[in-house]
Amino acid sequence: MKSPLSGIIPPLLTPLTARDQLDVAGLERLIEHVLAGGVHGLFLLGTTGEAPSLSYRLRRELVTKSCRIVNGRVPVLVGITDTSFVEAVRFAEHASDCGADAVVAAPPYYLPPSQPELREFILELMTELPLPLMLYNMPGLTQAPFELPTVAALMQHDGILGIKDSSGDMKYVQGLLQLARQRSDWSVLIGPEELTAEGVLMGAHGGVSGGANLSPKLFVDLYTAAAAGDVPRVRKLQRKALQLSELLYSWGQTRGGWILGLKCALSHLGICSDLPAEPLRSLTDAERETIRERLAVLGLLPVSPSEVGVNE
Amino acid sequence: MKSPLSGIIPPLLTPLTARDQLDVAGLERLIEHVLAGGVHGLFLLGTTGEAPSLSYRLRRELVTKSCRIVNGRVPVLVGITDTSFVEAVRFAEHASDCGADAVVAAPPYYLPPSQPELREFILELMTELPLPLMLYNMPGLTQAPFELPTVAALMQHDGILGIKDSSGDMKYVQGLLQLARQRSDWSVLIGPEELTAEGVLMGAHGGVSGGANLSPKLFVDLYTAAAAGDVPRVRKLQRKALQLSELLYSWGQTRGGWILGLKCALSHLGICSDLPAEPLRSLTDAERETIRERLAVLGLLPVSPSEVGVNE
Amino acid sequence: MKSPLSGIIPPLLTPLTARDQLDVAGLERLIEHVLAGGVHGLFLLGTTGEAPSLSYRLRRELVTKSCRIVNGRVPVLVGITDTSFVEAVRFAEHASDCGADAVVAAPPYYLPPSQPELREFILELMTELPLPLMLYNMPGLTQAPFELPTVAALMQHDGILGIKDSSGDMKYVQGLLQLARQRSDWSVLIGPEELTAEGVLMGAHGGVSGGANLSPKLFVDLYTAAAAGDVPRVRKLQRKALQLSELLYSWGQTRGGWILGLKCALSHLGICSDLPAEPLRSLTDAERETIRERLAVLGLLPVSPSEVGVNE
Amino acid sequence: MKSPLSGIIPPLLTPLTARDQLDVAGLERLIEHVLAGGVHGLFLLGTTGEAPSLSYRLRRELVTKSCRIVNGRVPVLVGITDTSFVEAVRFAEHASDCGADAVVAAPPYYLPPSQPELREFILELMTELPLPLMLYNMPGLTQAPFELPTVAALMQHDGILGIKDSSGDMKYVQGLLQLARQRSDWSVLIGPEELTAEGVLMGAHGGVSGGANLSPKLFVDLYTAAAAGDVPRVRKLQRKALQLSELLYSWGQTRGGWILGLKCALSHLGICSDLPAEPLRSLTDAERETIRERLAVLGLLPVSPSEVGVNE
Repeated sequence: MKSPLSGIIPPLLTPLTARDQLDVAGLERLIEHVLAGGVHGLFLLGTTGEAPSLSYRLRRELVTKSCRIVNGRVPVLVGITDTSFVEAVRFAEHASDCGADAVVAAPPYYLPPSQPELREFILELMTELPLPLMLYNMPGLTQAPFELPTVAALMQHDGILGIKDSSGDMKYVQGLLQLARQRSDWSVLIGPEELTAEGVLMGAHGGVSGGANLSPKLFVDLYTAAAAGDVPRVRKLQRKALQLSELLYSWGQTRGGWILGLKCALSHLGICSDLPAEPLRSLTDAERETIRERLAVLGLLPVSPSEVGVNE
Repeated sequence: MKSPLSGIIPPLLTPLTARDQLDVAGLERLIEHVLAGGVHGLFLLGTTGEAPSLSYRLRRELVTKSCRIVNGRVPVLVGITDTSFVEAVRFAEHASDCGADAVVAAPPYYLPPSQPELREFILELMTELPLPLMLYNMPGLTQAPFELPTVAALMQHDGILGIKDSSGDMKYVQGLLQLARQRSDWSVLIGPEELTAEGVLMGAHGGVSGGANLSPKLFVDLYTAAAAGDVPRVRKLQRKALQLSELLYSWGQTRGGWILGLKCALSHLGICSDLPAEPLRSLTDAERETIRERLAVLGLLPVSPSEVGVNE
Repeated sequence: MKSPLSGIIPPLLTPLTARDQLDVAGLERLIEHVLAGGVHGLFLLGTTGEAPSLSYRLRRELVTKSCRIVNGRVPVLVGITDTSFVEAVRFAEHASDCGADAVVAAPPYYLPPSQPELREFILELMTELPLPLMLYNMPGLTQAPFELPTVAALMQHDGILGIKDSSGDMKYVQGLLQLARQRSDWSVLIGPEELTAEGVLMGAHGGVSGGANLSPKLFVDLYTAAAAGDVPRVRKLQRKALQLSELLYSWGQTRGGWILGLKCALSHLGICSDLPAEPLRSLTDAERETIRERLAVLGLLPVSPSEVGVNE
Repeated sequence: MKSPLSGIIPPLLTPLTARDQLDVAGLERLIEHVLAGGVHGLFLLGTTGEAPSLSYRLRRELVTKSCRIVNGRVPVLVGITDTSFVEAVRFAEHASDCGADAVVAAPPYYLPPSQPELREFILELMTELPLPLMLYNMPGLTQAPFELPTVAALMQHDGILGIKDSSGDMKYVQGLLQLARQRSDWSVLIGPEELTAEGVLMGAHGGVSGGANLSPKLFVDLYTAAAAGDVPRVRKLQRKALQLSELLYSWGQTRGGWILGLKCALSHLGICSDLPAEPLRSLTDAERETIRERLAVLGLLPVSPSEVGVNE
């Protein structure tokens, strides 16, 4: 794995055919779809991958099958975030056995640790992990941030590769970029796909863009333009990226709208099933139809003959 | 199990001798200690029991051993709160096999469900659970409350026994008590031990008081006075209950201070080990010594000969 | 003014006939209405009185006229909460000139002060104030709480009479009651009317109940029962108090629903105008009609002849 | 005033010599200092200007004197944010009388308005204002954001010039930039100085940078580089801008650290007094000395002879 880790590393969706049943054919098509778009790595079992909602058995199967499919073409990162230290270590061992390249961990997320507790938790974890670790800052869901002084302390550990930030707080990202100047092999990746371009313009190394499940090439192009400092091209591509999230990610009161929208869009493209894991629930037929229409607006799906002359 | 479930039901601490190793002798002494204090039931694997921090293997062992020790003397409730539907059901089956009386579930707690998603999650869960369910409202940690209309909807299901509220929001509890008038077998239990007395005065059925691990009789007496409407006695006992939490629960920046304080106090009493599960960390020697002194102030530990003549 | 201040002290609504125009006749009827209900004091220019939304000119007029109308029959407290120290002092001087008995101040509420800044702000204020001060804890709106150690420090100042808590956090109130044991003339008043009864049962001195604008006798009776430790009567009256807030206080997305509901109810009773100050907006005609019907349900308004035979 | 409003518009500090006493000579020096640095406008009475902490009398004096000093050299914007509609209008009339170019309003900030209430408040305000209005999004302090659909509705009003965003939420800023494509004279200004460069790279029109009180040229250069799409120069200047905020803005628990740090730095430069308005409090002597040393590190203050040979 080259260092620092950079580029677009999609947080892979987890295709399902039924509760606790992996959509293996869908998984294969999805991986080939994103690799064909030029992505620079894969991140399995993140928030977008619905990791916490899945049984451990299914999570293991997903890692096994994905590593086999990827077969070394790009680095594979595996989420091991867990509330239990013991379960996190056990899962990292499985990822290592499957040939994954690194693991990713957010703070344990039920009773939020203090910063000293978090630092010790990660350092203790490093004594047990068989693979390098990427930190995952996700305070909106874990309620425990990796504060900058904690990151500064953990950067001293060579086995920690970098940090993915999903806070959406670009002032914090500026602080991460200042810290990153201390280690040339340290990577700062941006979680929210709407902020990846500006993060990379300011010096970040890439993005873990959920939308790259659907439009891998768009996000790879956006990253490439930003890494080259091509501001006019960034602004043009950014509009397309924003349009994608505006049209596909908001569905009623759910907080998992982007997962539902992306799974549904991929089902319309014939790539995988749209079934989410509980507590998420499938979109309604009307919402599914709306997504199909919007995919056409986005140029991602040709208008089918059956729609000619349809009144709405 | 009588209905509605009432009285003091301690959220049992989980004694550990090492990482992923249950303190079986300590567990036995702890259970006998609280039963001797007159508690009306036990709640295993709640927040105080550090459930999310434990391996599933250890959680299973704890339920197996605890049910064997209790042997039907009081009802045993088992926490099955999980981010994964499949794991929650699997654990409930284990609790049922061990002879537990009911299970307890907070909302899945990584990506917070909307109220419709939460309602469907619980209703779907009811089709799979082998035991009755008590709801567990803990919005501070799960970020997803059981809002009153959701509770009203779930009350229609006979298999749901009641709700334990740990929000600390007594206006919400007033709403629960208004709803409770619809079902004579429905139970409203108060989580925060500082609020149990006033909750019971207003009509709640009891408390899941962490402090009852240490001083079961105090909390049983407080409950009894409140249930009898004996306001002067309530105010007198309440002062002792507040003193306990003021002296033992705050340690630095950790949010698990009450767990650390209670485990340490019980180790001073010779009941069980004080080791917490990660990400919590043991108190320092100085803090442990402070707790020993405060236990003497509380009248829970005789001053030992070695302390005679010590200046502070 | 007797000490500690106790009983029901309504946060008086501010009747308006137009923008920046006081409804003087309505004010007189409103004051007589609450005094007839037996309230123990009046609190002008609190949150319920829409103080921050009013011009200073109108606020001054309100204090002048209210003090004249009350004419010493009960103590009058005047809110001087302001973001500006200088304006707060100036307003306190006006209140003193009008014959008010005490002033009430929440923390300055734009840039939230730290606890040391808050403590110094209040102590500095005490050197300038011509009247005794009651603290007003309202962290939901000011973002700056009076934390318990700050209250403990401020209690050393004889000119500070007590604290009104509107946090709704009864664990905090328990802490206030523990502190209150240090000063026999110190008063703890409960803001949320739904929590006044249980607060008084546990030792609080009274309530600043918004609903007492409409039903002063109900809240006086509830306080009296709680102060006497009459638990069965408290529970019975509490149900009526809860019904009032459930039926009248929630209107769309506004956070000032209780003000709109109470003003509208009082206009139906012929007491004062229902006009709020910006940014609040009058209820719709349909909502006004709903309130009229609900007042009948609550027994506060006789069903008028025109409603006989109406289907809904 | 050219449109859209663009460039660096410092939120001017309010120099004070004593409580409620303007430092007029300091104000004159401060204005000349920032104009000499090339700023494109001035914003009086924002958060950095401590507006809510000042008496209305002093606020009026500040506007009168500042407009006289500026004398048309750059546009002057005046904050009229108030909890009271009537006071906001009155202040805007004063600003107009003094020759200011526009006014700026955040939502009324005690009881946070709902979005419909906020929209109506602003539209009603527009019927009374004598000057064009810039919206001011500051949800961290007002608790009421201008949500994107509200901005979209208010953009239809020609008298509204644009929006200054101080949320620090760059995803929201991306939404504002998408909306801004509808009106070529609409301005999006960035509040946090750490985010101005990346905002301008993505299409924003400028920044209301507090640090420009101290280093106006640095922020003007940063803006110019970003507006020209010169990414390498942006990254280089950004490091200097970040160093300034890292070294000068954090002092204990106060939330007004940047105001205290900037006022103190300007007093070391001989520009104006460092006295803040309550509830802020002056830094300690040790902190003042630290700032002096850090100004030397930043190259903003020459090392004085007295420091030669000093060990620390």
